[in-house]
Amino acid sequence: MNHLERLRTLDADARLVQRIGAVLAWDQETYMPPAAIEERGDQIAFIEALAHDRQTSPEIGEHLAVLGSTVERPEGDPTLPPLDRAYLRVMRRAYDQATRIPTELVAEMAKATSLSQAAWAKARETNDFGAFAPHLSKMVEFNKRIAACLDPSKPPYDVLLDRFEEGATEAGVKAVFTPLRDDLVQLMDKIRARPQVDDAFLHAACPADKQAKASEYLLAALSFDRDRGRMDTTAHPFTTTLGRDDVRITTRYVEDYFPSSAFSTIHECGHALYELGIDPAPEYRRTGLADASSMAVHESQSRMWENMVGRSRGFWAKHLPEFQRMLAPVLDGVDLNAFYKAVNRVEPSLIRTEADEVTYGLHIILRFELESDLVAGRLAVADVPAAWNERMQRLLGVTPPNDAKGCLQDIHWSMGAIGYFPSYALGNLYAAQLWDAMKAQGLDPVAAVDKGDLASILAWLRDKVHKPGASMKPEDLLRSATGSGLDPSHFVRYLNHKYGEVYGF
Amino acid sequence: MNHLERLRTLDADARLVQRIGAVLAWDQETYMPPAAIEERGDQIAFIEALAHDRQTSPEIGEHLAVLGSTVERPEGDPTLPPLDRAYLRVMRRAYDQATRIPTELVAEMAKATSLSQAAWAKARETNDFGAFAPHLSKMVEFNKRIAACLDPSKPPYDVLLDRFEEGATEAGVKAVFTPLRDDLVQLMDKIRARPQVDDAFLHAACPADKQAKASEYLLAALSFDRDRGRMDTTAHPFTTTLGRDDVRITTRYVEDYFPSSAFSTIHECGHALYELGIDPAPEYRRTGLADASSMAVHESQSRMWENMVGRSRGFWAKHLPEFQRMLAPVLDGVDLNAFYKAVNRVEPSLIRTEADEVTYGLHIILRFELESDLVAGRLAVADVPAAWNERMQRLLGVTPPNDAKGCLQDIHWSMGAIGYFPSYALGNLYAAQLWDAMKAQGLDPVAAVDKGDLASILAWLRDKVHKPGASMKPEDLLRSATGSGLDPSHFVRYLNHKYGEVYGF
Repeated sequence: MNHLERLRTLDADARLVQRIGAVLAWDQETYMPPAAIEERGDQIAFIEALAHDRQTSPEIGEHLAVLGSTVERPEGDPTLPPLDRAYLRVMRRAYDQATRIPTELVAEMAKATSLSQAAWAKARETNDFGAFAPHLSKMVEFNKRIAACLDPSKPPYDVLLDRFEEGATEAGVKAVFTPLRDDLVQLMDKIRARPQVDDAFLHAACPADKQAKASEYLLAALSFDRDRGRMDTTAHPFTTTLGRDDVRITTRYVEDYFPSSAFSTIHECGHALYELGIDPAPEYRRTGLADASSMAVHESQSRMWENMVGRSRGFWAKHLPEFQRMLAPVLDGVDLNAFYKAVNRVEPSLIRTEADEVTYGLHIILRFELESDLVAGRLAVADVPAAWNERMQRLLGVTPPNDAKGCLQDIHWSMGAIGYFPSYALGNLYAAQLWDAMKAQGLDPVAAVDKGDLASILAWLRDKVHKPGASMKPEDLLRSATGSGLDPSHFVRYLNHKYGEVYGF
Repeated sequence: MNHLERLRTLDADARLVQRIGAVLAWDQETYMPPAAIEERGDQIAFIEALAHDRQTSPEIGEHLAVLGSTVERPEGDPTLPPLDRAYLRVMRRAYDQATRIPTELVAEMAKATSLSQAAWAKARETNDFGAFAPHLSKMVEFNKRIAACLDPSKPPYDVLLDRFEEGATEAGVKAVFTPLRDDLVQLMDKIRARPQVDDAFLHAACPADKQAKASEYLLAALSFDRDRGRMDTTAHPFTTTLGRDDVRITTRYVEDYFPSSAFSTIHECGHALYELGIDPAPEYRRTGLADASSMAVHESQSRMWENMVGRSRGFWAKHLPEFQRMLAPVLDGVDLNAFYKAVNRVEPSLIRTEADEVTYGLHIILRFELESDLVAGRLAVADVPAAWNERMQRLLGVTPPNDAKGCLQDIHWSMGAIGYFPSYALGNLYAAQLWDAMKAQGLDPVAAVDKGDLASILAWLRDKVHKPGASMKPEDLLRSATGSGLDPSHFVRYLNHKYGEVYGF
């Protein structure tokens, strides 16, 4: 076995263990009886430690070195085929990230995170930011220490961003987010000037079993392969990969708002279609090259299916009649135009997870600005609530009545996840740019949706976005699929066109 | 940490891995998408190998030796407390069984078994015993080799029996089964002489969702703790332990015979109540001492709940009205007496898994006689079909029209499981003896069921049967709970009394 083969085997062995962990975690979220939680925690901790051992095996480092992969030249020996070089880059990155953070720091942070999450949950409940503040300070400090371990030569927030979106920098994200922010604020002004859309009929009571049938119907409409995946119910929807042929999504049913389950199902199905489509090469099927390119690319897929396909007029022209039948009497007498407008209603709100397609980006930009300021020391933890509220008013025109509905609403910071939020908004930008690229390359996606031809869209995405997996960095993937680097104007044009139609301006 | 503590820790670590495997296997049977089977196979194989490594760690052998445990004196140092000595016995047995069979033999047999199972499935389909015969010969040979590895000083079939039922011997089982066989044949003669019971109404079409509600109702009636377990649907019902507080059962729904799911739910719930009740001592919770005493003791619990409680008149006096409501119109107009008789209808049949409480034992005795003859060389593989058919006629008065409905019906031998069948019948004998012991000790179980007081029965079983787990060998457990060794007359009396009532003799 040569070094590359041995590397793939070691990698596949580690991933096998990781995916066993994914089965345990999936079961915990879906079906596990409540009292089993303690022993399951031990099972998961055991598997995670075993996976970490395998990911950090010195043998991996030795093979990488022999193959010429270094920090300066992660792709290794230039005479190797391109896919093998891409693999060395992926493995070098994963290996360095896993080995550079000392085990003691990981353990220390895990302990602090567990306390921080508990403190956050309580602080949110009692609306007491002061009780959470010292934990947030600790999480910022831990993140700085991690950044210093990973790459002391770069500004810490750049290092943190790069963990989730390879190649992203604060300056790069800012250069995109600043004009985007202004464009979104302007668009919101236009929407505010128009009469609000009526969506009262979406709030009719609709039993979970009817919603479940509708969700199954949507999965079939999107060609979700039930031989290679399934859907279950959880408190918070997610997608998880338990095996190359085992990608599972979850949804939840809100009794008086059925669009919650419908669009969450489409969203998670978008993630799943991506995972199921990754296939850089047969010999790389069980390796890290068969992972997604990035968080934001993942989000581009979920959001394209949810918003560009799932909230389009053409999609509902085809599916509304069946939906009316399945959910009857909930949508009796509702016409296509009213339904289309209702599921695209825009309204500035306090909570990110409830935000529409237009205001969502503003919620993210706010978090990006605050977290980058926190890490750079430009903002003190104690000043977060005031900064949050001031920006909410400026960007969205609303002010949280309390911190529970403001800076305490998200779990992310309490978990030590800093640098993660921008991926959500970048995903929207990627999605719009890919959508326009389809059209430029001769496949008009809107016309395809109108014809009910989702297969052509999926085929294009499979080929240009899904198949390569991690073999291309996000920026390279975007360039390869669309011909240019990240350009937020696609998203802004898309929004202006769609919401001009919905709100009539 | 002293040697005993270290031993418990090593044991708990190995069991943690085993139970991760149980989660993977449960998911495979219940919810896993079909295409995931290959990768799941690799995940399970990895976990099994890891569990085996841990179970056979030489460190376990060293601690056992230091604590004075030897083959001759497995309980070790006589000055240790009784529970610790019981634990040493359990660990010595498990360690010897796991280490005495060479890895090569295990691998060789695994390969042969996989071929044998495939050949059996095909032979059953095509009704071609000849095609399976060479595989059956191999399975018998493998079992003899395993017996020789485990204990060359004993007759091979005794060693095989002991793997499933500690302490069982061919002579001991025969001494019980021979009179039992004659008593069952006599009882069948009495039943045959009476008019057959009508159970046509049990075969009315009943949708799966109604049956599912009825099964949930039964679990609640039996105090199955949903915080520590759950029920799902699979092709073949089973019970599995994923953690001390995570015992799961499954059932299946046969559209035109709802009693199948109802009684299978009670049966598996009986297994689960046992598993959930094991608790020899807090410090032994995650060790092999918290396993069941034996296969037959396990079966005694499932069958006591299924047959003695679940098929009793008192149980249905309480639950039939609710069943009629849930399954309406299936049981409309059926009275308690007719229902009670119908669910206890006795009829000699060809297939073991469909057999009633009276004839079941005869199916087992036939298998015991044949497999013990095969291992001892008293019966040639080629003569199995004739021997099977001759005994079926003699014991049950029916002759299989073909081997598919005769000696090819069970998967066990094709999997190399020889010595396993007797546990099923021993379980019935244990159950009846325990039932009588309750009464002798002041708790009349029939009166308790009549009063709807299942809690008293469960409490008695918890205390006398469940709690000790593996700390007592089956024969010691029986003696401790009932005051005497195995006595099949309890079962025979129970059957004669019950079926005298059902058939009126």
